[in-house]
Amino acid sequence: MTEGSPTGRRVSRRGLLTGGAVAAGGALAGGAAIAVARPDDPRVRPAEPVPVAQVGSAVESFHGVRQSGVTTEPQAHAAFVAFTLKPGVDRAALGRMLRLLSDDAARLTRGRPALADTEPELGLLPARLTVTFGFGPGLYAAAGRADRRPPSVADLPAFRIDRLQPRWSGGDLLLQICADDPLTVAHAQRVLVKDSRPFATVRWVQQGFRRAAGAEPGRTQRNLFGQLDGTANPRPGTPADTAVWVTDGPNWLRDSTTLVVRRISMNLETWDLLGRTDREIAVGRRLDTGAPLTGTAEHDEPDFAALGPDGLTVIPDFSHLTRARVTDDRLKILRRPYNYDGVPTAEGHADSGLVFAAYQADIARQFLPIQRRLAERDLLNEWTTPIGSAVFAVPPGCPEGGWVGQQVLG
Amino acid sequence: MTEGSPTGRRVSRRGLLTGGAVAAGGALAGGAAIAVARPDDPRVRPAEPVPVAQVGSAVESFHGVRQSGVTTEPQAHAAFVAFTLKPGVDRAALGRMLRLLSDDAARLTRGRPALADTEPELGLLPARLTVTFGFGPGLYAAAGRADRRPPSVADLPAFRIDRLQPRWSGGDLLLQICADDPLTVAHAQRVLVKDSRPFATVRWVQQGFRRAAGAEPGRTQRNLFGQLDGTANPRPGTPADTAVWVTDGPNWLRDSTTLVVRRISMNLETWDLLGRTDREIAVGRRLDTGAPLTGTAEHDEPDFAALGPDGLTVIPDFSHLTRARVTDDRLKILRRPYNYDGVPTAEGHADSGLVFAAYQADIARQFLPIQRRLAERDLLNEWTTPIGSAVFAVPPGCPEGGWVGQQVLG
Repeated sequence: MTEGSPTGRRVSRRGLLTGGAVAAGGALAGGAAIAVARPDDPRVRPAEPVPVAQVGSAVESFHGVRQSGVTTEPQAHAAFVAFTLKPGVDRAALGRMLRLLSDDAARLTRGRPALADTEPELGLLPARLTVTFGFGPGLYAAAGRADRRPPSVADLPAFRIDRLQPRWSGGDLLLQICADDPLTVAHAQRVLVKDSRPFATVRWVQQGFRRAAGAEPGRTQRNLFGQLDGTANPRPGTPADTAVWVTDGPNWLRDSTTLVVRRISMNLETWDLLGRTDREIAVGRRLDTGAPLTGTAEHDEPDFAALGPDGLTVIPDFSHLTRARVTDDRLKILRRPYNYDGVPTAEGHADSGLVFAAYQADIARQFLPIQRRLAERDLLNEWTTPIGSAVFAVPPGCPEGGWVGQQVLG
Repeated sequence: MTEGSPTGRRVSRRGLLTGGAVAAGGALAGGAAIAVARPDDPRVRPAEPVPVAQVGSAVESFHGVRQSGVTTEPQAHAAFVAFTLKPGVDRAALGRMLRLLSDDAARLTRGRPALADTEPELGLLPARLTVTFGFGPGLYAAAGRADRRPPSVADLPAFRIDRLQPRWSGGDLLLQICADDPLTVAHAQRVLVKDSRPFATVRWVQQGFRRAAGAEPGRTQRNLFGQLDGTANPRPGTPADTAVWVTDGPNWLRDSTTLVVRRISMNLETWDLLGRTDREIAVGRRLDTGAPLTGTAEHDEPDFAALGPDGLTVIPDFSHLTRARVTDDRLKILRRPYNYDGVPTAEGHADSGLVFAAYQADIARQFLPIQRRLAERDLLNEWTTPIGSAVFAVPPGCPEGGWVGQQVLG
């Protein structure tokens, strides 16, 4: 697997080790992974966690001009629930469904049981619950509002790295349910799925997790490869933040965003066969600190021109960092991924990966160019496989008493 | 489903509602669940969460006379991993395996990467990680130590309520991996499964959750039926605490305990059809406070003799509280369950339930009588189905430098 990719490209591990600029330049400790782990190094060991109060009672507002759950500091747990609308569900029925689900979400996010809540005691801990609504292409068609579908909300082009499975792909309506408490997510999922039943069937559910609330405050999330994931995200308040939101246009478009959900299987078996140096070359960053191979701290600017003693660039052109790099703030995407870890096979092979979720104002202008570059040459493709894909518009938020989608359907 | 049980018993919901002493006595508010939810009632709404520091860095000691993860305050996340030993794995091989896994556990529980850790950065947050080793009957046989198997560690008798599936049952070796952080559990599972591969295959994995660390401190766990679960547990320091541990005998038995893991499917579809009064009669307790139907607070002693105005007992004989009741402290069991919540069907039917884990000194003397009473008459059987079952001895702990099982195999 590490020598030949499914797409026919061939990457020589030996070549990386013997000819790679980084390894040759001695910039990395190299050797076995064991020797590189330095738990007492302050760059590796996160800062001592600060006290976290009110994990259970903390509230994220459901109502607002923009939906929550997008730029909200990611919660520890998520369930992405995609629905297929039943035949005959039209604009009027959709309106009833979205009114009902918005009402459920408004109550549960405040720590109040839903109206028809049969386990009301499970609805009392909001734990920063957010419920984010995404509209797939099919919803616009069912509503007779195809004209209001953002053009980039359509099936993505096929990438040669894709091995997409229908069971993880598509969907007319998405609910992204996130909270710092797993029981809160489970209960919200139960309520929302039950109330959707007259209108829709469940197409797929993807559950995921990040570090627990308070476990590692202020740190970028790590995925199951051990990589820091999300370093290059637009930071709140920066110009790049506006890359997430549509800031003009009619009221059903303004303050909306779009969401791409990709299920990325991560092959821990072959990844774990790699030496640490090879992995860092593939990523373009140190695994411990997340620093680019030309820097010392996570947020250091990478120097793509820097050469090693052998005259080759320190950060290779095929590294994930290089391929995913976006310099224009307006073209960045907001990654908000969750890890998944299913049941291993009898042989002990992991079923691990990422529920990759990316928010951006325009999929075609922001997500697609990155994805094309990654599909073309990203060395990480050797160990990762996209097995699911779905796209959604995330319409504007709603005020108190309103409902998500009212501007789109109204 | 609510009118006729799979075992042939028939329970009339109408009878419960019209003839039940509790309903007739007006002791319950009755009516729809919606009306009963009182989020502002201090008995329902948990006390304001207290600050929780160091979710990530908190450590539970691996070494000790007794294994951790038993009377340890339950962590938020668990993976129960059961293995089948490979043919030919004998006492010597088992010793190598248990030395290796004990070393992994000792390091990871301290926030240190395992020796052969390929993702060392994922090993730095202990988050109260515990790894508890359980030995199934097959391990004693493979080790040629059948004489050291506690007699009650054997397949349970068949109960008529059982619908056991091989995929959730049995096992030669169990690792119960618990931590307050889901990534810590996933990483520990990965390391331990990898290091077990020369010796064993993965038989089953059951992952579960409780409230997040800090979300609801000091409260009894709720299951997905909304019930408080574990109210009658022996409390640390009480005489009942000794019911958990074997306190005498040879060194391979003293300070051991036993573990029963049952996978209990909970039918939320039929449960949600029940009115609140019916549910509380089935449980024998209020759903909001967990108080027995004759009391006002969770830990009030139930009064099984109390009669309603119609002359019937307030707490029915078939309630879960009545059937599970143990008055002799030495015969109590320590319930340490986790919720599971899988992916719902297309129709939106939940795949929810409980990874029921119970610790006790002697399965035959403590667990079995309770289970027999429950199987015979517990009304909750209408909505719950055991679909997996496994039993393990939990041998004594080990000192620094030692390994779990050394007294059994030595």
